[in-house]
Amino acid sequence: MQTFEVKAFGTESAESALKQINIKRRTATPKDVEIDILFCGVCHSDLHTAKNDWGGTVYPAVPGHEIVGRVTNVGSEVTKFKVGDMAAVGCIVDSCRTCESCKKDLEQYCLPGFTGTYNGKDKHLGGRTYGGYSEKVVVDEHFVLKVPENLDAAATAPLLCAGITTWSPLKHWNVGPGSKVAVVGLGGLGHMAIKLAKGLGAEVTLFSRSPEKEKDAKELGADGVVISTDSAQMKAVSGQFDLIIDTVPYVHDVNEYVPTLGINGTIVLVGYLGPLDPMLNSVPLIMGRKSVAGSVIGGIAETQEMLDFCGENNIVSEIEIIKIQDINEAYERMLKSDVRYRFVIDMTSLKN
Amino acid sequence: MQTFEVKAFGTESAESALKQINIKRRTATPKDVEIDILFCGVCHSDLHTAKNDWGGTVYPAVPGHEIVGRVTNVGSEVTKFKVGDMAAVGCIVDSCRTCESCKKDLEQYCLPGFTGTYNGKDKHLGGRTYGGYSEKVVVDEHFVLKVPENLDAAATAPLLCAGITTWSPLKHWNVGPGSKVAVVGLGGLGHMAIKLAKGLGAEVTLFSRSPEKEKDAKELGADGVVISTDSAQMKAVSGQFDLIIDTVPYVHDVNEYVPTLGINGTIVLVGYLGPLDPMLNSVPLIMGRKSVAGSVIGGIAETQEMLDFCGENNIVSEIEIIKIQDINEAYERMLKSDVRYRFVIDMTSLKN
Ligand SMILES: [Zn+2]
Ligand SMILES: [Zn+2]
Ligand SMILES: [Zn+2]
Ligand SMILES: [Zn+2]
Repeated sequence: MQTFEVKAFGTESAESALKQINIKRRTATPKDVEIDILFCGVCHSDLHTAKNDWGGTVYPAVPGHEIVGRVTNVGSEVTKFKVGDMAAVGCIVDSCRTCESCKKDLEQYCLPGFTGTYNGKDKHLGGRTYGGYSEKVVVDEHFVLKVPENLDAAATAPLLCAGITTWSPLKHWNVGPGSKVAVVGLGGLGHMAIKLAKGLGAEVTLFSRSPEKEKDAKELGADGVVISTDSAQMKAVSGQFDLIIDTVPYVHDVNEYVPTLGINGTIVLVGYLGPLDPMLNSVPLIMGRKSVAGSVIGGIAETQEMLDFCGENNIVSEIEIIKIQDINEAYERMLKSDVRYRFVIDMTSLKN
Repeated sequence: MQTFEVKAFGTESAESALKQINIKRRTATPKDVEIDILFCGVCHSDLHTAKNDWGGTVYPAVPGHEIVGRVTNVGSEVTKFKVGDMAAVGCIVDSCRTCESCKKDLEQYCLPGFTGTYNGKDKHLGGRTYGGYSEKVVVDEHFVLKVPENLDAAATAPLLCAGITTWSPLKHWNVGPGSKVAVVGLGGLGHMAIKLAKGLGAEVTLFSRSPEKEKDAKELGADGVVISTDSAQMKAVSGQFDLIIDTVPYVHDVNEYVPTLGINGTIVLVGYLGPLDPMLNSVPLIMGRKSVAGSVIGGIAETQEMLDFCGENNIVSEIEIIKIQDINEAYERMLKSDVRYRFVIDMTSLKN
């Protein structure tokens, strides 16, 4: 298979800083779209993969799955894109295409497993896939998204992970006008959950431990903020919410939020991976037909639907633009939640 | 308020055996139906209330909320029943009638709380309500069910709690032809879950720890039995089920069953009240958009719907008929799961 070399930023081990390396991309096959990367959002998963926090990272690792760029080449059978189009790539660059999930446009739940945009098993070149911290990416057109031209390209990048991760549960649980939605945690995911839920017409409340988040949350569109450590405030919203999007990425007590769900309500976990500690109590679930659920990113068709919705409603992420040379410092700041609300790399910095 | 005295079987303290006592019933008000009790099923809740296992029992306590009998008197405004009709009463004898839940026929989730058939706060006479281990019961017609005349009256009684507790989640989660349902535990609830899911057209699998349950389960209609302690059998049903009805009443590892749910699948707890120990892991929920939910009994309208469905499909409970004088021994046997699958008291034994 023909390849070409591009510059990228990656890491050689869990202990190393990210630095410039060279990687190979395949030359576009008939179904492929080649994209010159303009912007790449910085997701917590990037950091976890670089540091091998979840195990399984194969080095060199090149993170990045919030990719926006311009099409520079298309294969002979590509129908959705032409050279010069704005295009985006999210967390998924391939899937089996034939399983029950794929047939239902649920590539994120592909039964044999989807191919992640980075550290996934590369079906074309062997080894692992390399993400968006690079000059170019080559992806089958099925997994490439169209970007509304009216949106700021840099601020659109985080929609590809933070956006779709919150959009998918909002849509799956039928949020719309009249819905009461709460969001736990105000970070990259949380701020998108507020904007998207509000965009869908819901009444939106932020749960936060920090009273100083109130002003920001309201500017993002939240109708209310509840300080979750204040039992009187928590009691005041008892039985209120149809859906709670819990974006908190570390272990925390989910039981605190269950009483704020109405009958038939669902709290959906999108941030924390691990055992629910303290133990989840079944009693309030049973006594109100409530559910605790999980959700991961979203399918390709619904990612396009979200981008189109954001185009129509002028919704983008709140970002801080950095150069690729500042990525290691950005990771340090992310670990301290010192970002409002997403770093986005200006990838032209890699060309210099 | 006018009252009359009836014989009942109840207990004076957590340590006492049940024995014959006298209780008062209100004389039928305009909306009330007076029922001569013919049969009363014996539910685990009866035993827990008699022994004050959950706290909150007020003595004397008269259990029984699977009541079938014949109407002997109706108030002047009653329209649904006439003297001589077969009628039934389940777990709920009153609710606020005005909250969001009650307005949606979800009296089981009445926000101020429904009035339980026993040990509930009696709005008419003060004190606590007395259940079906008695000669007669007087209940507002809204909470009285019609019993299909073709069904065996004794075997119908357990539908009023064990039946509706499993019917309600089957309907809420849209079980029908093509659905794949699993049931955890083969007791009073589990055997009804199998019969009702099968009646609704689902393919039904029983999870059990006991290989000797296989024959019974298949006779009840199960298509398959999976021994949950056999990891090869568990692996063979990975990703199979749309809905799992978990009837196990004691603490157990819910994580074992989550991998057998398909994408978007739900495990609904109807038996166990308490913390999920060991801790529920969020990863398989997130990676398959799966849910852990709870459900309690069912509303009055859906209880009637279930009874009508059972009438049309000739579905009743598997029972062992006892005399009221044998109730203490029956409790002992229930604690050893020595019943297939529900004791039902022939209440004429109380008249002798
Ligand atoms: Zn991400
Ligand atoms: Zn697939
Ligand atoms: Zn019961
Ligand atoms: Zn109510």
